[in-house]
Amino acid sequence: MKRHIYLEDIPLDEARAAFQAALAAAGLARPLATENVPLAAANGRTTAAAIWARLSSPHYHASAMDGYALRAQDTITASETNPLCLTLATHFDPDTADPGLRPAAAVNTGHPLPAWANTVVMIEHTQLVTDDHGREAIEIRASLPPWTHVRALGEDMVATELVLPANHTLRPVDLGALAGSGHAAVTLYRRPRVAIIPTGSELVTPEDAAHYGLQPGQIIEYNSLVLAAQVANWGGRPTRWPIVPDAFEAIQTAVRAAAQNHDLILLNAGSSAGSEDYTAHVVQSLGTLLVHGVAVRPGHPVILGMIGITDRPSETEDAQSPLPTNHHPSHVPIIGVPGYPVSAALTGEIFVEPLLARWRGQAPHQPLTLAATLTRKVVSHTGDDDLVRVAVGKVGERVLAAPISRGAGVISSLVRADGLVRIPRFSEGADAGTAVTVHLYRSPHDIENTILAIGSHDLTLDLLAQFLAEAGGDTAGRRRLTSANVGSLGGLVTLRRGEAHLAGSHLLDPQTGEYNISYVKQYLPHQAIALVTFVGREQGWIVPPGNPKGLAIWADAARPDIHLVNRQRGAGTRVLLDYEVGKLGITPEQIQGYGREEYTHLAVAAAVASGAADTGLGIRAAARALELDFVPLAHEQYDLVIPRPYFESDLLRPLLDLLHHDGFKTAVAALPGYDVHLMGQVTFLPTA
Amino acid sequence: MKRHIYLEDIPLDEARAAFQAALAAAGLARPLATENVPLAAANGRTTAAAIWARLSSPHYHASAMDGYALRAQDTITASETNPLCLTLATHFDPDTADPGLRPAAAVNTGHPLPAWANTVVMIEHTQLVTDDHGREAIEIRASLPPWTHVRALGEDMVATELVLPANHTLRPVDLGALAGSGHAAVTLYRRPRVAIIPTGSELVTPEDAAHYGLQPGQIIEYNSLVLAAQVANWGGRPTRWPIVPDAFEAIQTAVRAAAQNHDLILLNAGSSAGSEDYTAHVVQSLGTLLVHGVAVRPGHPVILGMIGITDRPSETEDAQSPLPTNHHPSHVPIIGVPGYPVSAALTGEIFVEPLLARWRGQAPHQPLTLAATLTRKVVSHTGDDDLVRVAVGKVGERVLAAPISRGAGVISSLVRADGLVRIPRFSEGADAGTAVTVHLYRSPHDIENTILAIGSHDLTLDLLAQFLAEAGGDTAGRRRLTSANVGSLGGLVTLRRGEAHLAGSHLLDPQTGEYNISYVKQYLPHQAIALVTFVGREQGWIVPPGNPKGLAIWADAARPDIHLVNRQRGAGTRVLLDYEVGKLGITPEQIQGYGREEYTHLAVAAAVASGAADTGLGIRAAARALELDFVPLAHEQYDLVIPRPYFESDLLRPLLDLLHHDGFKTAVAALPGYDVHLMGQVTFLPTA
Repeated sequence: MKRHIYLEDIPLDEARAAFQAALAAAGLARPLATENVPLAAANGRTTAAAIWARLSSPHYHASAMDGYALRAQDTITASETNPLCLTLATHFDPDTADPGLRPAAAVNTGHPLPAWANTVVMIEHTQLVTDDHGREAIEIRASLPPWTHVRALGEDMVATELVLPANHTLRPVDLGALAGSGHAAVTLYRRPRVAIIPTGSELVTPEDAAHYGLQPGQIIEYNSLVLAAQVANWGGRPTRWPIVPDAFEAIQTAVRAAAQNHDLILLNAGSSAGSEDYTAHVVQSLGTLLVHGVAVRPGHPVILGMIGITDRPSETEDAQSPLPTNHHPSHVPIIGVPGYPVSAALTGEIFVEPLLARWRGQAPHQPLTLAATLTRKVVSHTGDDDLVRVAVGKVGERVLAAPISRGAGVISSLVRADGLVRIPRFSEGADAGTAVTVHLYRSPHDIENTILAIGSHDLTLDLLAQFLAEAGGDTAGRRRLTSANVGSLGGLVTLRRGEAHLAGSHLLDPQTGEYNISYVKQYLPHQAIALVTFVGREQGWIVPPGNPKGLAIWADAARPDIHLVNRQRGAGTRVLLDYEVGKLGITPEQIQGYGREEYTHLAVAAAVASGAADTGLGIRAAARALELDFVPLAHEQYDLVIPRPYFESDLLRPLLDLLHHDGFKTAVAALPGYDVHLMGQVTFLPTA
Repeated sequence: MKRHIYLEDIPLDEARAAFQAALAAAGLARPLATENVPLAAANGRTTAAAIWARLSSPHYHASAMDGYALRAQDTITASETNPLCLTLATHFDPDTADPGLRPAAAVNTGHPLPAWANTVVMIEHTQLVTDDHGREAIEIRASLPPWTHVRALGEDMVATELVLPANHTLRPVDLGALAGSGHAAVTLYRRPRVAIIPTGSELVTPEDAAHYGLQPGQIIEYNSLVLAAQVANWGGRPTRWPIVPDAFEAIQTAVRAAAQNHDLILLNAGSSAGSEDYTAHVVQSLGTLLVHGVAVRPGHPVILGMIGITDRPSETEDAQSPLPTNHHPSHVPIIGVPGYPVSAALTGEIFVEPLLARWRGQAPHQPLTLAATLTRKVVSHTGDDDLVRVAVGKVGERVLAAPISRGAGVISSLVRADGLVRIPRFSEGADAGTAVTVHLYRSPHDIENTILAIGSHDLTLDLLAQFLAEAGGDTAGRRRLTSANVGSLGGLVTLRRGEAHLAGSHLLDPQTGEYNISYVKQYLPHQAIALVTFVGREQGWIVPPGNPKGLAIWADAARPDIHLVNRQRGAGTRVLLDYEVGKLGITPEQIQGYGREEYTHLAVAAAVASGAADTGLGIRAAARALELDFVPLAHEQYDLVIPRPYFESDLLRPLLDLLHHDGFKTAVAALPGYDVHLMGQVTFLPTA
């Protein structure tokens, strides 16, 4: 079974068309069957037929006030100087009553008007009196037009009127209108049942991983969790299958079982063309393989197919049981979902959501879009539609889309993404500054309240994000801090281009021994800047527990038995290393591993923890986080560089306030290697 | 207990502040207690604490390809002309192995790299060979940099990194990131339990109304359905109480019971100051009445209060059972929700949503807003914030907000509303043409796809809306038809102001006997118009079953024993009546009820059905809908008047296509009194 199938990516449109044609041929390209659902269970679901009013609302002429029902024609002579007396007479019959009698009947709000009445006077505008015959009566001092303070029959809805059309997703007020027009239940599209089958001998459940830990090679299976939540959000009923090992028969058995009582099968993964990728073979063995490979990244090793079903058990209503008899398809669609988590989630958006939408009579979801400017060049794979995850923020008057790491295995990139930018096929990418359309994952309101921090990375920025997320619960102005790590110099360059609100920076000036000031003057000469002291922190060698190679001084960087891991160009930590080893006359060529670059302190620590490197320069907190040892070498200052207009903006106010907040300072000071005694000090640097 | 309480509306801000202060004093102005929830049940809920990675992801250096793990430094000499042989050696130990051995180990995607390896060559770029010692080996023809095709430890997330902040509402991908960083469960805010208690002796359930019908004075209780769905949408757990009769002790007992195991009580209604409005008394008897009446319309008779609790039962986990012990408030907030359905739903939005948001650490919901132009003057109650429901559509380049009926009892107005416009206190209203901000209930995409039909009402427009809602399921371009009834002339005036896409019209020209053409020329001289024939229909007397007063001819309108119900000025039906009785020399003064105006055929029929009038002029379908009899008098033509730019627009294409659709024609023809043989004929009227 080794590489029998050649995976050839076809364009997304062609893949969709092939799937659509097969669904149509199987009678599955239309909404699902319907079911009658009590109103109390109908919220958020979709009507399968128009609903017409069975009753009028109100279904009688109702008083709209507490007061008295009258005949308007009796009141014509009433005025301030000529009060009129009306006799209380609930059981008034115009055919038999004294022709001179002017009747009035007490009514409360919502009460029906007597048949003879056509208007209502408010109780506040009456006085209780006695009429000429000693009967209870009221006195009024103004005439009333007919239909005053009356809710006429059908004012809201008239029987037979259209209350709601088909294909309408029910909101709370819709339930009220349905009930008010005489319905206790409503005809909805049945919710599709979706089987989600994770396959892979290397997979372990999140529960087992949390309880027993992981061995190298084991992977936590969470795609089924993500797909199930997507399916639920899109109106389906997910069934998560237990993990199936990488074995043809086991997978085939699971798919055959799922096809018995599900509308759609998501098989994850084994959709590529590796030695243990059985999905295509299983689909071929049980039905038709329509598509193997779609030219979209992430997500290209998608499989689309149809599983044939011969005999389905008969109807019952239980969730796990066979489908109702009004659903008799000969085939069940199957989607082979790629294994990388970003690919899996995007396959859900691209193929599963539109199908579930169609099955409840809806067009595919249209995300909100926002016009933005790309901040970095994106190189794209020609021939593929490329879906670039971006962070989005509004800096000044410009909306910026900053591309995030593109690895299909990096689920955190999707968590951080504010939206997607599509680079179409036959394009080789897009340059920085290109106008793009972002398909948003967040609301425009969230985007407006996003603070973009692009520059040097520090753990305390996570803490700041965390405190910001907890602050301001009372206001609609809660801020979100999004930070991207491009190193200290990269941050200043980003500020110069006007593409961030602030940058973290810890750049040592070898001439002055000062941090940041000379760099800000050099890189941002035309901007007024507030340089805000954030934290002081230790830098030193991050080493394995026990410091087995005995690192102690800067010169150890050049030892022949030491393999270093370095930071990327422009990182303040790299500037510090270059400065200190340079003073000793050591050149990069003398340092083994100088060229291996990582982008964060934690990544440096991870390289040391894994044994891939003997040491790297970094902060104490990163060493501590991965239970490594630390050899302190220097003390440095980490500042926030903030252009004056943002420093003074409402947007940044909650962030700047936190720098004077004891709870935040205490939390930072509790991190090893940090001091906060200068936190919040501001130096204003005018334009040059 | 009659009117002891004087209801005095206070401004919304003051009411909110008073409620907030009381909540704060009771320790209830902060998020609820937390609970640990398995990831599979956490979708859509809100994190109560920051979540930091427990494991790195990947937690080992993983191959990103099927291929062979190597040492990059071994490959430096490899080139196309100088192939390099590497020996397959899974259990390689650099300290004991032959120093000349260049090891390679087969790896599949996701497999861990051996400790000695630092790069991966794709299987496609290798050939299986035998080395000099006859051992299995591979040959490569290019050198490899380190860390090629390797997903390094921590590439996605590094242990101790911030995965998600607190107060974050979990999306499917977030669940993946949590699982991938070593979590199987997550700390969330507990969902608030909300008791919804409907009160009123006149209330019946929707089920009873559907099964047994209604008596005059009975009202279908659906506010609890609406409030429960709102609460669920806003992250709460609603409990719908059975209907409680209007009796002080019964209501008090229900409130006391609900306070035992709920976080919030919604008592509906009895919040006004009528003789059976017990809510304020009940609140006073069990706690503190904070606010009775808020200056906002609809919704002003709101009550805000706190119920005291002395002893709560101890903890269990069941939904109906007492609250967990980490929740020990001394008070439970109570909101007396007004009885009118629009007031009830808006009270939910104004008071309940912000409180539930706060309890899960969120700011109140911020609806999307849209700048629009008001189409009609709105007169507002000075001193109250006035929430005007509006239909919104984009006509040409203008976004228009058309006010909808303002009665607090008209739930259908909220169903039809596309958004709310707030007319602030101390304003007397807003003129037509005022720029307003609409708080949207629908997506901007829906608004873009809305066809605004403002003019004469006809039942077949409902049918058209219904067919449009069912059409175009495959495209994102499904249209929504919103129609407002202002009569035929009103429609032409609306088109002249550029405030609708089309107008239904059936205006008879007494001079020519033609319909609509002369009116279009007169009212729209400067616009090119497409006059599209829609339906032909009968007009006649709508009379009670059996036609008890024997109406037969136009002249019957002036009989002294006949009370008419008329249509509003500008309605084509009224023009027809005026024309026909005018020919007979009958004046409006001779017609009893000429001044009572209704806005739709169905409303006219409803007036006849209720006995409020003996007859009215209208269409056969309206009579039939309410099981009334019909005396045909005339045959008229009902057209769609469409400015040329909209006639030719993509927006209207699906609607115009339906006029040639057999299914739609058949459905219209099946309605009594309609003929469709001219449907879809177009007459183009150029500008004058």
